[in-house]
Amino acid sequence: MKRLEQQLVDLQARIQTLEAKTPSNKVSLIVFSGDMDKVLASFVIATGAAAMGMDVVMFFTFWGTPVLRDKGKKAGGKDFMGRIFGAMLPKGACEVKLSKMNMAGLGTAMMKSLMKKKNVADLEQMLAVADELGVRIFVCEMSMDLMGFKREEMIDFQNLNYCGVAKFLEEAADSRIQLFI
Amino acid sequence: MKRLEQQLVDLQARIQTLEAKTPSNKVSLIVFSGDMDKVLASFVIATGAAAMGMDVVMFFTFWGTPVLRDKGKKAGGKDFMGRIFGAMLPKGACEVKLSKMNMAGLGTAMMKSLMKKKNVADLEQMLAVADELGVRIFVCEMSMDLMGFKREEMIDFQNLNYCGVAKFLEEAADSRIQLFI
Amino acid sequence: MKRLEQQLVDLQARIQTLEAKTPSNKVSLIVFSGDMDKVLASFVIATGAAAMGMDVVMFFTFWGTPVLRDKGKKAGGKDFMGRIFGAMLPKGACEVKLSKMNMAGLGTAMMKSLMKKKNVADLEQMLAVADELGVRIFVCEMSMDLMGFKREEMIDFQNLNYCGVAKFLEEAADSRIQLFI
Repeated sequence: MKRLEQQLVDLQARIQTLEAKTPSNKVSLIVFSGDMDKVLASFVIATGAAAMGMDVVMFFTFWGTPVLRDKGKKAGGKDFMGRIFGAMLPKGACEVKLSKMNMAGLGTAMMKSLMKKKNVADLEQMLAVADELGVRIFVCEMSMDLMGFKREEMIDFQNLNYCGVAKFLEEAADSRIQLFI
Repeated sequence: MKRLEQQLVDLQARIQTLEAKTPSNKVSLIVFSGDMDKVLASFVIATGAAAMGMDVVMFFTFWGTPVLRDKGKKAGGKDFMGRIFGAMLPKGACEVKLSKMNMAGLGTAMMKSLMKKKNVADLEQMLAVADELGVRIFVCEMSMDLMGFKREEMIDFQNLNYCGVAKFLEEAADSRIQLFI
Repeated sequence: MKRLEQQLVDLQARIQTLEAKTPSNKVSLIVFSGDMDKVLASFVIATGAAAMGMDVVMFFTFWGTPVLRDKGKKAGGKDFMGRIFGAMLPKGACEVKLSKMNMAGLGTAMMKSLMKKKNVADLEQMLAVADELGVRIFVCEMSMDLMGFKREEMIDFQNLNYCGVAKFLEEAADSRIQLFI
């Protein structure tokens, strides 16, 4: 009897360890690319997963960061390099371009009109849906700093926060699906 | 005694929950890119995993989709945009190009001759091996629709099916390895 | 009593199976890209994870491979194609370029000076930190062979080894986070 009880205690400890190690029903996406097609794929996955009841976290870093700029907002106090990046990178979801067949904007325009015709939501609609479904967005602080972006020029989004790589790793290690896009 | 029995029942329930959450010995790959080098990498991973006895699922989406077109098949009834995409995108595994150093096709030809010399299987051979090893392929329905591809122009492959994002998420959440390529 | 003991034995077996299937506290990264921004992202993730106590493995393949060449080392006995690849691909971490806005090297130089100003470590510093933190690097043997690289021209790095796809799959299947970069 004593021995049985001890075995039970041992099993409980092992199960507790396993439970702590087993990831949540969560998807973590790193949106590194700023290409329209890849950002679109990110949001198809994100909103699809959220609709299925999964917890969804998107980390925007590097070229993905400018996608979250609000075209209607302005930020002052930028240094020279910040103004260059600000002018050269797309301002928000409506300005991002295809990675292939962009053909000086023609391909991107064609793809957008095609998406409309085929009833595929565009990036701005996807962002709104993601917001509604409770998708959480984190923006990489290092990228914000490197590109000279200010928080006041980013879009309004309920669950938008800023973070470093440690936060990403913590969420990703607790996710069933992690993708670098 | 009663208490011990109850504890055992509790543990069984916790173990059952863990078992349901623990992913299968499976690899899920999203083949988003249509570049020869990346598609090649996808098949090296897919056939390697299948040879090791893992269950392998490949999801072809966006630029990855045209890789699965059969150069010997034709599809009628396409609209204007469908014909444009059909003509501009590679028709099958033998037409895909390198992402870097393509140099108007020269680099791709060089790489192909090099692969032959070094006994690295080319894409068409890889597809045949994947088919033989029971790799499952899913093609993204949204991409087929956007690019105007018809099912009758796709390659013959035993386990080829069409799906949406929900099917990918279901398989990926049950996989030990998931990669976006 | 007999019945209870048998149940305990069953549970132990199920727990053992789960423990074998539960991945280690490990990150596996495939560094496929040779673009400065993506290699940089790989090292930010790798060193961040290592600093948090995670086991980190990086697999360098295809365009990622030349990043690990040592600019101070030379390798003889290369054939014609090997010499072409050797000359065209970047020689080490200091020669890699941005994937976007490279602008004939101007963008890359701007980014480098910006990183210095913002105190972001460059690739060569990142490599040194990764080495110190015990990050393990594997270089894809097929890529070495295809590009004609010799082991004697690769950088000095404590835990650098050469492997095929099977080794990657084994490590990745035992990792909480796997990313294709």
